[in-house]
Amino acid sequence: MAFILTFLGKGGTGKTTLAIAAAKEFASQGQRVLLAGQSSGPGLGLLLETPLEADPKTIAPNLQVVQLQTSVLLERNWETLKEHEAQYLRSPFLKSVYGQELGVLPGMDSALALNAIREYDAKGNYDVIVYDGLGDQTTLRMMGMPEILSWYLRRFREVFDNSGIGSILAPFVQPFLSSVLQVGVSGDSIAQPTNQAQNILEKGRQAIADPNRIAAYLLTTPDPLAIAQAKYLWGAAQQVGLTVGGVLLNYLDVSVTEISEMLILPEFSPLPVRSIPYRMVDNWEPLQAALPNFREAIQVPRPITIDVAAQTVSLFLPGFDKKQVKLIQSGPEITIEAGDQRRNLYLPPELSGRSATGAKFHDDYLTISL
Amino acid sequence: MAFILTFLGKGGTGKTTLAIAAAKEFASQGQRVLLAGQSSGPGLGLLLETPLEADPKTIAPNLQVVQLQTSVLLERNWETLKEHEAQYLRSPFLKSVYGQELGVLPGMDSALALNAIREYDAKGNYDVIVYDGLGDQTTLRMMGMPEILSWYLRRFREVFDNSGIGSILAPFVQPFLSSVLQVGVSGDSIAQPTNQAQNILEKGRQAIADPNRIAAYLLTTPDPLAIAQAKYLWGAAQQVGLTVGGVLLNYLDVSVTEISEMLILPEFSPLPVRSIPYRMVDNWEPLQAALPNFREAIQVPRPITIDVAAQTVSLFLPGFDKKQVKLIQSGPEITIEAGDQRRNLYLPPELSGRSATGAKFHDDYLTISL
Repeated sequence: MAFILTFLGKGGTGKTTLAIAAAKEFASQGQRVLLAGQSSGPGLGLLLETPLEADPKTIAPNLQVVQLQTSVLLERNWETLKEHEAQYLRSPFLKSVYGQELGVLPGMDSALALNAIREYDAKGNYDVIVYDGLGDQTTLRMMGMPEILSWYLRRFREVFDNSGIGSILAPFVQPFLSSVLQVGVSGDSIAQPTNQAQNILEKGRQAIADPNRIAAYLLTTPDPLAIAQAKYLWGAAQQVGLTVGGVLLNYLDVSVTEISEMLILPEFSPLPVRSIPYRMVDNWEPLQAALPNFREAIQVPRPITIDVAAQTVSLFLPGFDKKQVKLIQSGPEITIEAGDQRRNLYLPPELSGRSATGAKFHDDYLTISL
Repeated sequence: MAFILTFLGKGGTGKTTLAIAAAKEFASQGQRVLLAGQSSGPGLGLLLETPLEADPKTIAPNLQVVQLQTSVLLERNWETLKEHEAQYLRSPFLKSVYGQELGVLPGMDSALALNAIREYDAKGNYDVIVYDGLGDQTTLRMMGMPEILSWYLRRFREVFDNSGIGSILAPFVQPFLSSVLQVGVSGDSIAQPTNQAQNILEKGRQAIADPNRIAAYLLTTPDPLAIAQAKYLWGAAQQVGLTVGGVLLNYLDVSVTEISEMLILPEFSPLPVRSIPYRMVDNWEPLQAALPNFREAIQVPRPITIDVAAQTVSLFLPGFDKKQVKLIQSGPEITIEAGDQRRNLYLPPELSGRSATGAKFHDDYLTISL
């Protein structure tokens, strides 16, 4: 299992540069690294001074790089899906549609990239995967996908089961889910593939919630807009269960003195803040030397802490004030709304199904009594 | 019908700042303007020095601003969908799921934002809508949605009709489509709602292809990475049929002289390039004065030109070289692949169904003979 690292921050704060520096540093320490670029623009390739491809290529000892191209991933996944369809369905109907003609719709970039990272991770060839994504809400939506998709599956399966539609749709949903998940199932039941899907999503959710597996770091310049955006993304990351391990303060302009570090420290407390020097052309060493130990993300507050004995759930929601956080109890689970994200609390069996009896927001923590 | 304007470019080149300047300038000319911010971070609100809301609010004469909040849009659309479901389905099954508990999945931001813009446009209250989105591939995926979704609907309806699945799914698809599209349909046929969907998508596609309706402008700084990204987005925009009207060269650093304008002009030929001065705090006038006439986007090359008499299709694909452009004929339509985008050519009846007999790529144009 690889350690997956990504950077969040306003555009132009140097996310791609830092992703390269981190990848180089891990590789120089003897870790087997995959640098996976998502943005389809030329940025990463230009900074690395090499053309990128849709499959990993070695660019230095221990260091491979890949460009996650959505159209290619879509084509490959479609062909696999068709193979599975032919295997599981008596009269396959998708075989006449070709992967090469499929256009890219919104959301496919994130879904396919997350799946590609999962597959690279599962191969066991890498100790570290550095994901250079858009580093904004888009990356958070991607990281939130396992938990949220799992909720949709849980909730709508219940609804469909109760309405009797499940049994009608099963013959179509089953091969589709089997194919997307690339798991073999037999029979016509909708239960087996949805359970398999839940297993995969649950593994993804657990990985994202575990800072030993996946961590994000904030990137900002001394610009107040960049600081505000980093702070916002910090809070929004908690809402998808992603641990933010620290802040990197990138001096894009050599004329800015280190005084700004003192200014931003209190904004991001209790996160460690690390200053990153201005990068001179082709000299990556000073940047690499300035990097923190990214594995120390385990020392910061977790997005969610569930205390079964005390019957409380505690959510770390930095960067928001009381008015920006909403607690909703309309469905069977408790919903937290903040940062244009909704999180449905999936509780352990002991607390499952309970309503909130009280809630308070204090010192960046929302504590809910059940 | 409003004129819809948006900016494309690397992060940190000043897209939000320019969106505000453009909105202010249109408003000062007496046009009724809506500035619609998509990014859920605090940037736009901080620059405008006012908190934003999920509904338009007036911040100056003729100027309204709205933050497109996905969770709010999702909730509203869901409630409408449920109303329609109750109206069209004998035993509605979605009524037990509440809009307030729905999490946001990848792609929803784009789909809901595009729909919100469509609705604001349809209201007729605005002459200009300035859309401040992520300004990258995400914005292009959004703009490409009507054409690509229309293709999926066309292609898969054919596949489903041939397989007999259409008639089984019709009772479920029909109320769903009717609800999403907010159009009333009667009967159990799948044809009526899909035709209605095609009409709406076709209107969207035509609007995006018409620079009198929708135009994008590139934003770059003198930084070579920003220039490369702008050039990439220029080409990628053509692939979704969006006209790019010109380039704005933003001097973020006062020390850079105007010499860089001469350097970037040939890179973006035949687009006009306009220099934007460095913005001093709270002084928007110099910025507004430097803006081009955004309505002149009609003078630049169109993404696609179809000549029925000569039996040729000509695609303007700047920023790509021959090796990056692929022509594929696997499905019933001709597919063009470039810039991690696939475009299926939807030809007029006279040319529909034809195969390419030849193709050449010369001077940024791919010309296909049919």
